[in-house]
This record gives sequence, structure tokens and C-alpha cells, in this order.
Amino acid sequence: MEKIKNYIENWIRDYFENSKSKYLIIGLSGGLDSSTTLKLLTNAVEAKNIISLILPEIGITPKNDIKDAISLAKNLHVKYKIIKINKIVNEYVKTLPSLKKDKISLANVKPRIRMGILYAVANIKKGLVVGTSDKTEFYIGYFTKYGDGAADIYPILDLYKTQVRELAKYMQLPEKIINKPPSPNLWKGHLAEKELGISYEIIDKILYYKIESKEEMPNEKIAKILNINVDIVNKVENMIKNSEHKRNSLKYPLLWEKK
Amino acid sequence: MEKIKNYIENWIRDYFENSKSKYLIIGLSGGLDSSTTLKLLTNAVEAKNIISLILPEIGITPKNDIKDAISLAKNLHVKYKIIKINKIVNEYVKTLPSLKKDKISLANVKPRIRMGILYAVANIKKGLVVGTSDKTEFYIGYFTKYGDGAADIYPILDLYKTQVRELAKYMQLPEKIINKPPSPNLWKGHLAEKELGISYEIIDKILYYKIESKEEMPNEKIAKILNINVDIVNKVENMIKNSEHKRNSLKYPLLWEKK
Repeated sequence: MEKIKNYIENWIRDYFENSKSKYLIIGLSGGLDSSTTLKLLTNAVEAKNIISLILPEIGITPKNDIKDAISLAKNLHVKYKIIKINKIVNEYVKTLPSLKKDKISLANVKPRIRMGILYAVANIKKGLVVGTSDKTEFYIGYFTKYGDGAADIYPILDLYKTQVRELAKYMQLPEKIINKPPSPNLWKGHLAEKELGISYEIIDKILYYKIESKEEMPNEKIAKILNINVDIVNKVENMIKNSEHKRNSLKYPLLWEKK
Repeated sequence: MEKIKNYIENWIRDYFENSKSKYLIIGLSGGLDSSTTLKLLTNAVEAKNIISLILPEIGITPKNDIKDAISLAKNLHVKYKIIKINKIVNEYVKTLPSLKKDKISLANVKPRIRMGILYAVANIKKGLVVGTSDKTEFYIGYFTKYGDGAADIYPILDLYKTQVRELAKYMQLPEKIINKPPSPNLWKGHLAEKELGISYEIIDKILYYKIESKEEMPNEKIAKILNINVDIVNKVENMIKNSEHKRNSLKYPLLWEKK
């Protein structure tokens, strides 16, 4: 953990210095990923160079998440600003009334609004936007394209959710952040593992065999090793396939050979 | 031109059919790039599978551009909808009042709002968002990251602006679209070549030597061939360098070797 922590922190410091930006801008939700990322940022650069934005949707974002985000920023001596996204969300709904009865489409509007605010602040302040996606979300596509999946740098993108939790423990983040059930909080009572239908514990193990393992392993064998139903492995495999366009988003007809 | 046209149209058709999406969603500005892209879409798939969105900012978008966009959609028998972005822009400005006195930061908010609307419609209708960026914009970074630079497919991304104009002529698009001076129209009187300080004619030739040419050529030599000042070549080279993060946006510390 110490090696991983140092490697990420050095990478952040180098990237920030080479970029000649003045600030690192991060959206803080009170959840595990953004809290762990903020902690790494404070180890990598001076707190005065970090701006954290808490971007709740009042009525949807749990009040405790806002409290946890504020107290983390305070403890780490990082500037924070609370900006409610409700009015912009409402304006989108007025513009496209069909969003009202389309839960998933409306849900995806919100991370894109948050991205728009983070980048507006980054433009104003000459900063870089720091993404908080982890490797699990990235590979199963559990993020909004050009929303929470959009940033300038992604410090924890090569750590599975279960590894992020280990790193958070190692860095002694507050217990309630470490033990909080993951949630994008795009609607009331939104829980990641409920929506996905599989625990992160299991997803991460399947991803390990699919992505890291050197030998090609049939889904049946992975299911047997993990002592789970093969349908679960098939489901994760489909998530990986169906989200490929989110990881490699530059799809175009190549007319001339590249140098 | 016929070969290029067929290649792009076949690529669009294949991608659309494989994606199992129901619609192609395109933002139509009345300018050269989006008009040419729409024409290619109508040759590739049935018009009933295309939805064009005209997303003006009243007071900023030239009225003639809106007219040109409408008449192109009508001529090609493509559904269109006009959605004004003013109210959402105003809500961003109320949320972040410093945008009022920061022309460039405010300008960049707008393409991100348009992207948010295009993706919301794409989510509702089960469609793919079609980007209209060309190769010139892409290499000099003349686009808003996660704004107009954000889409699912980019049919003309491998064509320089001057080539897009040739293709538009070949496909017999209206004269006034072909001859319109390029503009992102993010403020009143916004003109691309004025903002860039170099004509597309020259930029494209420099890009050709920098990107396509097999032999490494010093800027002095390029300047001599094109009979221009070397400062112009240096400027374009810097634009390419400084926008690298917009083309390769997945920056993160790689902790484990990839398979």
C-alpha cells in the first residue's frame, strides 16, 4: 500500500507541475472514491492548490454525504464550495420534458451538469479537473460518458473498488467513509450494488481473471474457482463488452494511414 | 471524393447497424462541418433514423445560421427540433457569477450544455450522438473538451477543413453553407480564422507536413516551402502540443502492466 500510495502521489505531483496549472479541482461526494482521491491530492500537492466542490442535488444527495464531504475538506485544510445543481437540473427538465418520466436518462443528465460546473471553475481558476473513477467502474462502464467519466487526470483509475477501500483504510480515512455502501446518488435510495445486482467483492474478482490474468480462462472455470453461478461471470463479461465505447470513445473512419 | 464519400458512408452504416441503436442524433449549426456530416448520414442510413437538433443561443447564434440549418434538414427530409440553450446558460451564470466577466470560460460552458442536451435526447430515444469535428480542429485543439469534442462517432474526423469544403462541394451542398466563414459562434461576431490568427488554408498545409509527411521536417523548411513566416509554423506546432490532452484524455498512473 505504501508503494502504491507513493507511486500515485508522485504521478499527481509530476503531472500537476508539468501542466503549469494553478489548481487541482475535484468534485467531492462524501463517498469512498472522491475522499480517497482528495487524500492523495493533499499528500501530493499543497492544500492551497486544491479546490473541492461539493455538488449536491438537494432532495436526492443524502445530507450525511454532504456533512462527510465538508468535514473531510475541513480536516485536510482544503478549500471547499457547495454548489447545488437543482436549478440547472430543473432547466434541463423544462427544456426536455420527457426527462420527467425517464428515470435513467434524467439520472445521466446530472453527472454531465457536475462536469460542466467543474470545468467552468477549472477554466476560471486555470485548474485541472481531477476524476475519481476507479478501475471497477471503468471496466464495467458504471459511469456516465462525458459526465463523472470526464476529467483531466484520474489518480485511482488503476485500482479496483476493493483496493481503493484498502488504500483508504491504510491512509486512515474516517470509518464511516470506508464503510459507506457505494452509490452514485442519482435518485433517492440509489445503491450501486443493488443496481448492479452483484457485490464489488465478486465483480473485482471476475475482473481480475478477465483483465489481469495472463491465461485466457473460460467463464465456467472462473465461476468454479470463485464458487459462483456462471451467469454472474457472463453478466460481468457483457458489461465489459457493452461499455467498450465508453473507454475508447474516438470512433471514426480512418481515411489515411497514421504515421 | 467519391471514394472518400463511400468509405465514410459505409463506415457510418456499419457502425450504426452493429450498435443496435435506433437513431443517429446530430447537432446542426448551419455551418460547414455539421451540414456535411448530416448529408453523409442521410446517404448512409434512412432519414427516419436521423434526428437533428438545432441548438441556438438566441442573441448570439446568427439568425441566418438557424435558417440554413432548418432548410438543410427540410431538404434532406430529416426530423429537426429547435431547442434554445439560453435558459440553461443563464442558470450556469447564476450558479457561477464569475462567468459573467470571463468571456472564454463562459464560451466553453455552451458546447458542454449542447452536449448534455444531445446526450439526453440520445438516452431518451436510444440513439448515438454524431460528432461533427474535423481533423483541423482536432489537431490544433480548436474545440471544447467534453463539449463539441464529445460524441459517439465522428464521421469527418479524418478530413481537414479544406477537404471537408471540397467534399461539401462534391456533394452539392448549398453555396452559402460552403462559403460561410467557419465560426463556433460562442460570442457575437465570433470568427474562427480571426480567433486563430491564421487561415485554414495555411493551417491545413502546416498540419499536412507535421502529421502526414513521412519525413521529419524542421519548421524553417516548412515555412520556406509554404512561403510563410516561421512564427506561423511554430504557432501551429504549439497548438498541436498544447492540445494533446484533448486528444488523449485518459491520463492516469498505470500501476499494473497491461495484458
